[in-house]
Amino acid sequence: MPEAASATTARRATIGDSEFDRDTALTRREPGVYDIDLSAGWTIISAVNGGYLLAVLGRALADALPHADPFTISAHYLTASQPGPAVVRTDVVRTGRTLSTGQASLFQYDEQGREIERIRVLACYGDLDSLPDDVRTTAEPPVIPPMEHCFGPEDGPAPVDGSSAIADRLMLKLDPATLGWALGQPSGRGEMRAWFGLADGRDADPFSLLLAVDALPPTAFEIGISGWVPTVELTAHIRCRPAPGPLRVSITTRNLAGGFLEEDAEVWDSADRLVAQSRQLARVRLAR
Amino acid sequence: MPEAASATTARRATIGDSEFDRDTALTRREPGVYDIDLSAGWTIISAVNGGYLLAVLGRALADALPHADPFTISAHYLTASQPGPAVVRTDVVRTGRTLSTGQASLFQYDEQGREIERIRVLACYGDLDSLPDDVRTTAEPPVIPPMEHCFGPEDGPAPVDGSSAIADRLMLKLDPATLGWALGQPSGRGEMRAWFGLADGRDADPFSLLLAVDALPPTAFEIGISGWVPTVELTAHIRCRPAPGPLRVSITTRNLAGGFLEEDAEVWDSADRLVAQSRQLARVRLAR
Repeated sequence: MPEAASATTARRATIGDSEFDRDTALTRREPGVYDIDLSAGWTIISAVNGGYLLAVLGRALADALPHADPFTISAHYLTASQPGPAVVRTDVVRTGRTLSTGQASLFQYDEQGREIERIRVLACYGDLDSLPDDVRTTAEPPVIPPMEHCFGPEDGPAPVDGSSAIADRLMLKLDPATLGWALGQPSGRGEMRAWFGLADGRDADPFSLLLAVDALPPTAFEIGISGWVPTVELTAHIRCRPAPGPLRVSITTRNLAGGFLEEDAEVWDSADRLVAQSRQLARVRLAR
Repeated sequence: MPEAASATTARRATIGDSEFDRDTALTRREPGVYDIDLSAGWTIISAVNGGYLLAVLGRALADALPHADPFTISAHYLTASQPGPAVVRTDVVRTGRTLSTGQASLFQYDEQGREIERIRVLACYGDLDSLPDDVRTTAEPPVIPPMEHCFGPEDGPAPVDGSSAIADRLMLKLDPATLGWALGQPSGRGEMRAWFGLADGRDADPFSLLLAVDALPPTAFEIGISGWVPTVELTAHIRCRPAPGPLRVSITTRNLAGGFLEEDAEVWDSADRLVAQSRQLARVRLAR
């Protein structure tokens, strides 16, 4: 049925024309200054997802710097962002032939219209397509069951914690071995693994990798800790332009101590390349 | 012999009174601005060690912020530092009850006396002594032979690459399993492990941990790559005040690809606590 087939083709989003692109698009107000209305579509309960915010800042810096791809980006999350108006202010720190460094801050507005800083970022950009193809990665992809044996929010009962808009925008299929928490039986292991993509079918790119490193449920859930685990700082390395198709994300926590934990994320693409690595430091609110 | 015993006691350095403290001490020129003469004592061949520089910036921020201990610090290395005069300029980004965030840049001077930025840092500080003692670390210390079965530069022939002043200031005993490179037989594995301390006996503290995460030989050597492996960015998490006594440092590289590699460092103290974790992105200059 050609008409239905072309309708299906027309519906699948592409890099540059997708929910994610529209919701991370900024308007340049003047050189280095960008306005955006932060979407309510990438929230977990009421909190705007940190990876979505990182992608917004990442896109601003890609415009401000002479190099287009984030190589390493460190974000400090200062105050909680809300859906609504925001401004990103960027500074060029250094430009080089193959690498450039930039800084960016995202602000929102208080009731008097004053700018309140939400996130500050320091990042080094380059050109992923110019990297030599010499690959000596010794890390191996995570072992995750085939996607059809993994589970997303749509496969279970109503979400545990109420509505999370981001769930509608992601294709997230979790490894059942890291899903005990959703059934009241957390394994006690600081692990979270999932197949990951965007619900509208858009393939991954360096900016959606910035979302991917912070879009899974917290490892704290599987350790057996409920409640909020806010990110203090997150550093991501983007090592390769991801191949089309679903990603595999594997997150590990090994150092829960003193009220903080780290989450180490690896993102693997369909060509078995380790395309992104990140580590975040998060605060654990322990019930006492 | 009481007199000789007290002479021995007097020689051992302490936190606050040691080479490391003297060489990382800054002079406050005005609020937020600090002068320092970068020591030639922490160089590898002619390059000032990145961990020493991170410690310098860390100490400046500790003075500028209301909290004394680095919790997470991200550094972007822009241009190569030289021994000699430098200035650190800090900004307070946000202060809170338990955490504060700051930014700092280290500059040196060109021939016209203009400031050239060497390193920019973003960091979150807190009070390590106020953290709850709930420790659920699942990571385990690295397996390293006892110190007497490990080897430092003093145990081998003349240093491979000429003099490195930093070697005189460190107590570094490498695991023979990660020393193949020094004998012309690199294992091919991206690993480097060592016992680590300061040569004058000063115990570790959060600032010397910033040195420790970047003071071992590059994993690239053991992979079989010689030559310079400059750090682009390094992020360190300081999770615990280290106990007295030697540290164990274990560094791993799993993703050498496209002319870059990551080095993941773990630092363990004598009480078997995982006191620091870091990841750096470094550039590999491959001979072609």
